[in-house]
Parts: sequence; C-alpha cells; structure tokens
Amino acid sequence: MSQADYPILQLKKGEERRLRAGHLWVFSNEIDVAVTPLGAFAPGDPVMIVDSRGHALGSGYVNPSTLIAARLVDRHAHALDRSLIVHRLKVALSIRERLHEEPYYRLVFGESDGLPGLVVDRFDDVIVCQASTAGMDRLQDEVTAAIDKLLQPRVLVWKNDAGSRDIEGLPSLVDIAIGSLDRPVRVREGGLEFEIDIVEGQKTGWFYDQHANRDRLARYVKGARVLDLFSYVGAWGLRAAGSGAESVDLVDISPGAVGAIERNIALNGFEGRATAHVSEAFEFLKAARAERRRWDVVILDPPAFVKRKKDLKEGSLAYRRINEAAMQVLERDGILVTASCSHHMPRTALLEGVQAGSRHLDRQAQVLEALHQSPDHPVHPAIPETDYLKGYILRILPA
Amino acid sequence: MSQADYPILQLKKGEERRLRAGHLWVFSNEIDVAVTPLGAFAPGDPVMIVDSRGHALGSGYVNPSTLIAARLVDRHAHALDRSLIVHRLKVALSIRERLHEEPYYRLVFGESDGLPGLVVDRFDDVIVCQASTAGMDRLQDEVTAAIDKLLQPRVLVWKNDAGSRDIEGLPSLVDIAIGSLDRPVRVREGGLEFEIDIVEGQKTGWFYDQHANRDRLARYVKGARVLDLFSYVGAWGLRAAGSGAESVDLVDISPGAVGAIERNIALNGFEGRATAHVSEAFEFLKAARAERRRWDVVILDPPAFVKRKKDLKEGSLAYRRINEAAMQVLERDGILVTASCSHHMPRTALLEGVQAGSRHLDRQAQVLEALHQSPDHPVHPAIPETDYLKGYILRILPA
Repeated sequence: MSQADYPILQLKKGEERRLRAGHLWVFSNEIDVAVTPLGAFAPGDPVMIVDSRGHALGSGYVNPSTLIAARLVDRHAHALDRSLIVHRLKVALSIRERLHEEPYYRLVFGESDGLPGLVVDRFDDVIVCQASTAGMDRLQDEVTAAIDKLLQPRVLVWKNDAGSRDIEGLPSLVDIAIGSLDRPVRVREGGLEFEIDIVEGQKTGWFYDQHANRDRLARYVKGARVLDLFSYVGAWGLRAAGSGAESVDLVDISPGAVGAIERNIALNGFEGRATAHVSEAFEFLKAARAERRRWDVVILDPPAFVKRKKDLKEGSLAYRRINEAAMQVLERDGILVTASCSHHMPRTALLEGVQAGSRHLDRQAQVLEALHQSPDHPVHPAIPETDYLKGYILRILPA
Repeated sequence: MSQADYPILQLKKGEERRLRAGHLWVFSNEIDVAVTPLGAFAPGDPVMIVDSRGHALGSGYVNPSTLIAARLVDRHAHALDRSLIVHRLKVALSIRERLHEEPYYRLVFGESDGLPGLVVDRFDDVIVCQASTAGMDRLQDEVTAAIDKLLQPRVLVWKNDAGSRDIEGLPSLVDIAIGSLDRPVRVREGGLEFEIDIVEGQKTGWFYDQHANRDRLARYVKGARVLDLFSYVGAWGLRAAGSGAESVDLVDISPGAVGAIERNIALNGFEGRATAHVSEAFEFLKAARAERRRWDVVILDPPAFVKRKKDLKEGSLAYRRINEAAMQVLERDGILVTASCSHHMPRTALLEGVQAGSRHLDRQAQVLEALHQSPDHPVHPAIPETDYLKGYILRILPA
C-alpha cells in the first residue's frame, strides 16, 4: 500500500489522546484551526491527522462542516486507495466466511471494520453498499472496484439514502453500479428464504443485525403461538414458524411490508400457520386484549423510538408502554422477546421499563438471555456508538 | 398452599418501595426495630414482612445478624412450606426442560427462581444443593423432600461449604441426604462427557453458567490451535476439541484439576489432540512468549479477581494484565474469549481493560459477541446482584 501524502490536519494539544486510545473520530473543536483552518478543506478531502507536535496519528478524511470533522482510517498512514480498501475488505470477509455457512451477512460495518462511513451487506451475488460520510462517498468508485475484484458480484447497488447523508451535505440517491436489478433479491436465513426489496425497503432491505438473535429464538417457540409485532418483512415471525411454532401472527403498519410478509409466507410454505395483519402495534394489542387473545411468545423489535439523545425520556416511556402492552397478551408463563435498536437508549433503561411494566401487571420477569447485534456487526470497543442493538429474552410469570 | 401465620417484621416508612418495585431483600437499617426488634428473631425465622402501615408485603425469612436482614419469598404470603417449594421447583423445572435436551443444568438459581438462598444443580439423577442463608438452611429437609417428590434422584447432596455461609452464622458441611456417592458423577455437555467431583470440586463441581457460551465457541475453533487458561476440569478446552480444534492446550495451577482434565481427555478420546499443563497462568504465558508459541484462540475464564467491591481497582488491573498477556500469544488474526465472574467487576471495565491492552500492543480489537450467564441462571431484573457473569468473544487484529 502506498504511503499517503495528504495535507495536514493538526489537533490541539492533548486532543490526540482519544485517538491513541483507539477511537477514530476527531471533533471539530479538537482541531487547531489556527494552524490548519478547516475552511481550507472540502468535504471528503483526505488528510494526514497529526498531533500538536506534528507527530502523525494516521491518514483519514475530513468534513469541515460536520461535528465529527475527521475520521481516522489508517494508523500507518497508508493512502486511502483501492489497495487499502481491498485489504480491509479481505480482513472483513475472512471472519464472515468463518462465521457463516452461506454468503448472507453484513460484510462491512463502518468504523468497526476499519472503513468509517461504509456499510456493505451481502446477499449472495448481490451487494448493497451505503456511504454515510463525504469521505466515503468520494471513495465509492474505489469501493466498487475493490468489491468487484474480491467478489465479482452480479449486482452492486449504492443505497445512499440514509438521513445521516444530509448532515454531511450529500444527496440522497440510489445508484446501480454493477449489473441490473432484473429480478427480486432473496436472502437465506435459518433454512428459509425471504424476498426483499433493496431499493424501496428500509436500510439495505434486511436487518442482519438480529440474525444471531433470531437463531436463538428457536428453542423458545416449539409448539408455541407466536406474535411478531413491527414485523417488517416477517424475519422474526417466519423464523419462529421455521422453528416449529404452532401458529404465528405477524403485524406491521405498512401494507407494503405486509404484502412482503405474505409473499414470504408463501415462499416458505407457511400458509395456514402464519397470518399477516396490517395494523399499528398498540392498536393490535388493544384489540387482542379486548378479545382476550393470548400468545405464548411475543416478539417486539420496533424501529428506534429514541432517535436523538433528547428523545430519551419520551422514547423510554414508549418502550415501557409497548412492553407492558405486550405482556398483557402473554400467557401466564410466557416468553417476551424485546429489542431496541436506538443507540441512545441504554440497555439498562430497556430492562427497567420491562421490569416496571411487569410489576405494574403484578408479574415477575426472568431474564433468560441478553441480546446484542450479530457478530457480523462487530463492536469497536473504543467507539460506543458502534454498539447500538440491545434486547432481552424474558420469561414473564405470575408474581 | 397454606397462608402464612408468621411474626411480623415491620419496615420503616418508605422502605417498602424497593420491594414493591420487585426486589426481594430487606436491609437491616430499613426495619422499624422500635416496633419489631430484630433481637426477637433467631437466624432463619420465617416472618411476615409488612410496610410501615402494616400492609403485608409478603412472607419471607429473617437473619438478625446479617446486612441483608430479610428476604421476601412470596408476595401472596404463602407459608414457606413444602408445597410452596414444590410449586417453585416445578416452575423452574419447566423452563429448563424446554431449554435443555438432556437433564444437566442449574435447576434453581436462588432469588431469580423465587427461592432466595438456594442453588440446585442437576446432573441427571444426581442433585447438588447449596443453601447460603439461615432461612434456606432451615428449609433443607423440605427442599430435599420436594426435589425427591419431583425428580426421585438417585443421589442428593447438600454442598454447604460456600464462604457466604460464614456470614450467616452457618457451619460449612457436606451432607448426602439421599443415596450414596458410590461412583463418579458425570456431566454431559455438547455431546461430551466430563467426570466431576461434587464433594471436593469447586462450587457444585461444574460451572453450568458458561454452558451457553461454550456452545458459542464452536464456530470459532474449527481447525484452530486453542489455549484454555484457568481450565479447571477442562470444560472450555475440551468443548473446543469437540468442535474441531486442531490442538488444545489446557492450563490449570492445580494438579488435582489437571488430573481431572486428563481423565476427561481420555473419556472423550482426545489423547494426542489435547494436552493438560500444571501451571500458573501468567507463568505459562511468559514461558510461551519466550518460546514464541502462538495460538489461534485463547480462552480466559479465571476465578473472580474482584471478590469485594474494594478490590475493584486491583482486580481490574489483574484482568487487564492477564488479557494483555493472552493477546501476546495470539496469532496476528486471533480470537480471544475472555470472561469475568466477579459481580463487582463491571462489564464495561472488563472491555476497557481488553481495549487498553490491545492498544498497548498496537493491536485492534473487534467485539464479536458479548457473553452472559446461561439461561438456566436467569437474571432477576430488579436484583442486579443476580447478574454476575460477563465476557466477550473478540477478534484481535493488527492495528
């Protein structure tokens, strides 16, 4: 790999500490703008990040208009070129290949895989990439070429429509860089097949982050009546059906998602055993309570209720309310699978909400398993922001 | 179940709050000793716990000489008799039977299973019980009878030698209540067999709390050279051998433990592939480093380094040191499995130690999995003390 020869971005005294401890982000107030004014850079410019004494911390890229003003990419100061990207991809690929029997996984999880701002999901020979920063946006062609070299995908799509791109001053767009989407994309998980929509669907069209947790569901659902709320395309509920659930109800507010659930029910031959419902989750639970319906297992994997730190109080309350409502339709000795994908929602707050809800209903909760994002979404131990998914499998008993 | 008619233990105003929120412990300073003097009770006496206005909070038992002066057992104020114990055992058994294909598990995990002070491990038809409080100690015969009724074990042993009994004013003793230990006890896990010593061994002779985590080890060890430190009777290392490790080195400081490892190697036909070493862990790592030996996977499951809260600083440092030393014998792209069973060691502190160690060695860590105690050690969400086991599976790369 070639050594980088980039303009310097100098930090203030002492501000190198977090980077030396392993973090990769430089905040705008940590830069010595008297020496290296941010105005001299365009969004996405590659830079050599140095400490106040001029010692190189590594190569990275800058965005003068965001709070995270720079991201460190390589501590050995290699150029941010195709060979570095190929190397990082190979390192990322080797652990995924070891952990997965089939080529369906998140191949790159940004900072944790040494490629800040990049997400790559693999659906066999279909690759979906997301660039969330100006620096990574600029490296798109190199990433495309590197993935092509490594995996020769039939299709490679840049799904660049995440909200975070707005902050970086980037447009929202979807670009098919390799091949064409002439037929539906399928993902295989746990012996089942799911048809997904990578262009119109949420994020990359599939949530690999819950894969390992869905695997764990198997031993709780045999012969059970299962309710899957916020079901999206039916991943949790149909995995339950695939693991021997007696019946599964899948609920989503979006008619489009419910259409996808129905296709996926048919695709796996679960007609008669799985039923999809278009409904808002609270409304569904309210109606079910009125009809005295009960399930043995309820799965709650809602979208983020706490999108920003300031929403924590309100969001926590929403988590508590939905968990309490879910417990009200659980059998006397039931299993609650609950999750939150809000980074700003602390793990303990989720559990506290469940506990408070269970006491309010005069029930007692036992935590059987604590859930985390799947291993193909590795956590960078110096970057708490990379650890966002939390959940629990609980048994809910009479008090 | 019969309603309890026990002497009253009255709390001070407001001190019922934690109990109402789900906790089961009453601390001595929360008791209104002017109304119900603690001196009136003998250790283990059953009581009716009431709030400052005399409203019943439930039945429980007391120990006037410990910091935790009483434990709530039943919110509906049932008597602490055989029928209550049978009921709680049935509830505990039903989830274990659902989760386990074979009768090897922790059947009762104290407070989390509604039986404060009681631990029951099941090794097929051999049952090992531990009573850690005066209240539970007094109920031993009822527990024995209840288990006999439910499971008809061939052997039931009270392994009452935990250090915590001392605080409760209880003697340390081992009592065989049913049957006789005329032949070695075996535990089956992951298709392997292990011979254990429930009388002379640590705790109940086996650590079921890591069972689920050992299950997860499988996909990381195929074809790998594995080092298992603090190996005890070889559970982690031999599970690795059983999951296709190329070679396994198992290290324990105790010649007795290494003797057990060797028997378990033979029992499973792992001779030639697994080697047991009598050595202190740091010494072993130092020698290995000198010989430039390397492993693909290192497993670190030491005894608690932080036994008391005041040992946290020193203990944290010990965890960091052993993790850093382990990383020094890891291959360039290696897997570190690290755990702490110290309740007082926060999960984050363990990870911070690993992260600091990895940076010190100019390596980068990726957290692939966060480990918790197995589901047969359920966490009581209102009692943080029931959540003690933490660990990580990490990938350690060059920086």
